[in-house]
Amino acid sequence: MYQHGGDVYSHPNFIDFSANINLLGAPQRVIECAKAAINEITHYPQVGYHRLRQAIAELEQVESQQIICGNGAAEVFFTLVSALKPKKALLYIPTFQEYEHALKHVNCQIVYEYLREEQGFQIEESQLQQIDNTIDMVFFCNPNNPTGILTRTDFLEQMLKICKEVGAVLVVDECFLDFVLATEELYSMKNYLEEYLNLFIVKAFTKTFGMPGLRLGYGLCKNKIILEKMKSVTQPWNVSVPAQEAGIAAAQEKNYLIKTRLAVEKEKTFLLEQLLNYQPQVNQMVLLKSSGQETNLEQVQEKFFIQIYGYAANFIFFKSIINLDLELKTYGILIRNCSNFQGLGEGWYRIAVRTRKENQALIYALEDIRKKYFF
Amino acid sequence: MYQHGGDVYSHPNFIDFSANINLLGAPQRVIECAKAAINEITHYPQVGYHRLRQAIAELEQVESQQIICGNGAAEVFFTLVSALKPKKALLYIPTFQEYEHALKHVNCQIVYEYLREEQGFQIEESQLQQIDNTIDMVFFCNPNNPTGILTRTDFLEQMLKICKEVGAVLVVDECFLDFVLATEELYSMKNYLEEYLNLFIVKAFTKTFGMPGLRLGYGLCKNKIILEKMKSVTQPWNVSVPAQEAGIAAAQEKNYLIKTRLAVEKEKTFLLEQLLNYQPQVNQMVLLKSSGQETNLEQVQEKFFIQIYGYAANFIFFKSIINLDLELKTYGILIRNCSNFQGLGEGWYRIAVRTRKENQALIYALEDIRKKYFF
Repeated sequence: MYQHGGDVYSHPNFIDFSANINLLGAPQRVIECAKAAINEITHYPQVGYHRLRQAIAELEQVESQQIICGNGAAEVFFTLVSALKPKKALLYIPTFQEYEHALKHVNCQIVYEYLREEQGFQIEESQLQQIDNTIDMVFFCNPNNPTGILTRTDFLEQMLKICKEVGAVLVVDECFLDFVLATEELYSMKNYLEEYLNLFIVKAFTKTFGMPGLRLGYGLCKNKIILEKMKSVTQPWNVSVPAQEAGIAAAQEKNYLIKTRLAVEKEKTFLLEQLLNYQPQVNQMVLLKSSGQETNLEQVQEKFFIQIYGYAANFIFFKSIINLDLELKTYGILIRNCSNFQGLGEGWYRIAVRTRKENQALIYALEDIRKKYFF
Repeated sequence: MYQHGGDVYSHPNFIDFSANINLLGAPQRVIECAKAAINEITHYPQVGYHRLRQAIAELEQVESQQIICGNGAAEVFFTLVSALKPKKALLYIPTFQEYEHALKHVNCQIVYEYLREEQGFQIEESQLQQIDNTIDMVFFCNPNNPTGILTRTDFLEQMLKICKEVGAVLVVDECFLDFVLATEELYSMKNYLEEYLNLFIVKAFTKTFGMPGLRLGYGLCKNKIILEKMKSVTQPWNVSVPAQEAGIAAAQEKNYLIKTRLAVEKEKTFLLEQLLNYQPQVNQMVLLKSSGQETNLEQVQEKFFIQIYGYAANFIFFKSIINLDLELKTYGILIRNCSNFQGLGEGWYRIAVRTRKENQALIYALEDIRKKYFF
């Protein structure tokens, strides 16, 4: 049973911090184009979606032949794995769960390499050694979901080279990269597409343009054999008419992306400032946690209960000694309990950066919870 | 390279007889609900789509646990095949090409059993012998696309029993059954779901409710193991928010289905009456065709060039000695050249039943073509 964020259906009218969607929502023109496209649903979607690929090619500055689209990025992962049927794959965990879901579907053996809390969930050079010639496919999410950690391209270049040497495909998930302020160009692996035929980059309109309900993701790859194999394992009409039209409209909204990054940065700064009030100096929370029943209240008088880890994208990943998801539900607030991610135990949470009003509601609730636990 | 009908993108403003869509289009309420749903695309689609399954359960009078939905019926076929990974499958051809496409994707060996022109493409009892204990899966389309031939449930019951005996899953594609006037209940295999755990029925909103661009199909099956396996090989968000809402709205449009059947019947009758003008008495066209250069014009003075086969659904399947698809393109009319269906050669065509105005345009064009060939 896979548990994901964004279950607004069981929790109508809740404020949703559990799905990492653009806080500005979808651009108005995207909504309008999608609505207009509903008038065209009596036709099948265009096989090969040429106009959409052309629009993405201009947005991403890659050639349109290097683009393949899916019914959300999730379908792109499934199609890629179905097409290449890797025997053995490497996952750096914790990470997005659908890689594993897709790999299990082809009975692929999975090697889990743990990103360690002590390293702040940053990948280390020694962890590249796991990529040996038994590995067919490596997944890497950048910035990583749920940890919010960004990895530099020079490091990923090393990873890519090793993958090439051992004959493995490197899948880099850049679905959250467009949320990284001003540095997207510095962190994207797009520049390596020309040289490396074993590189496959996945992106999505889902989060960036606030349209997860419409389902539109895409892959970038120069390897024609991989792309042809993917087409052979997919129905020809996998991207709906409104998704195609919304994507074409979204691809023209470059300024919206910049506005989004600025809004995320502003609100993330606000949230982090507030959350810092609940974060102890180094080791203070560890003390609080380990001391258990014998907690010396004087020692922890500041009543800290949050430890922040990554926040490179539009979400914040942290640890808490309080069951925050359950507590916050009583305030009508959904956050992502990350305990079901491989490589994480209890106590890990992820919150999306939302609008000021929503963020404020979260902070009020947290303050209330603090008072309840540390009266 | 798979070639399908409905390529209105390469032929804007053409009249499209090549895709078998409801001639009434989509119900107005479905369009409205889909448009309203565009406002909700900032949320992920509901995992498990409970409301949609409940609506389909009421429409189909089956239990909602027996329903699985897909991004079009095509995805349902791919998911089913991915989940069960049959080693050897049986196809009665000519038939819808996506079964083969899906089976090849899991490297399944395919046995092709030819439905024969001499039998009017009706399946014969002797052809059930192909279902032996090496077969894991059998596909049967009823009414069959592209032949338009309907098969009785008592015959399919035999097929289902044999499949059960040899341990094969029978997949019955009923995507066009809702177009069959007044007899849908008599021809559906739904009543066998309770007793046969090896029965899987596929249906779609695509054709019936005129919404192929939105992508929504579903499977009916009582076998929980099959359904669970299918879920394990699919992303959790495969049905978009607007598709879910459109489906919920469509499922309540029972009268629209009846109106559709009446409209199809009326226009089909008109088309068939007109097409009969171009159809020879038995063997007369064979004579025309075989006589080649030495055609005795007096002998074939009626200038016949069409031979009609099946028309149980909302389309008509026929043979012609003229390259009708090419000829009709010069009139801005698209029809389906069926020569790329396994089991058919050159000279086979399929036309959808369209509106009176469109049907009239087709007949005018045919009359013009007749004059050109037989001046």
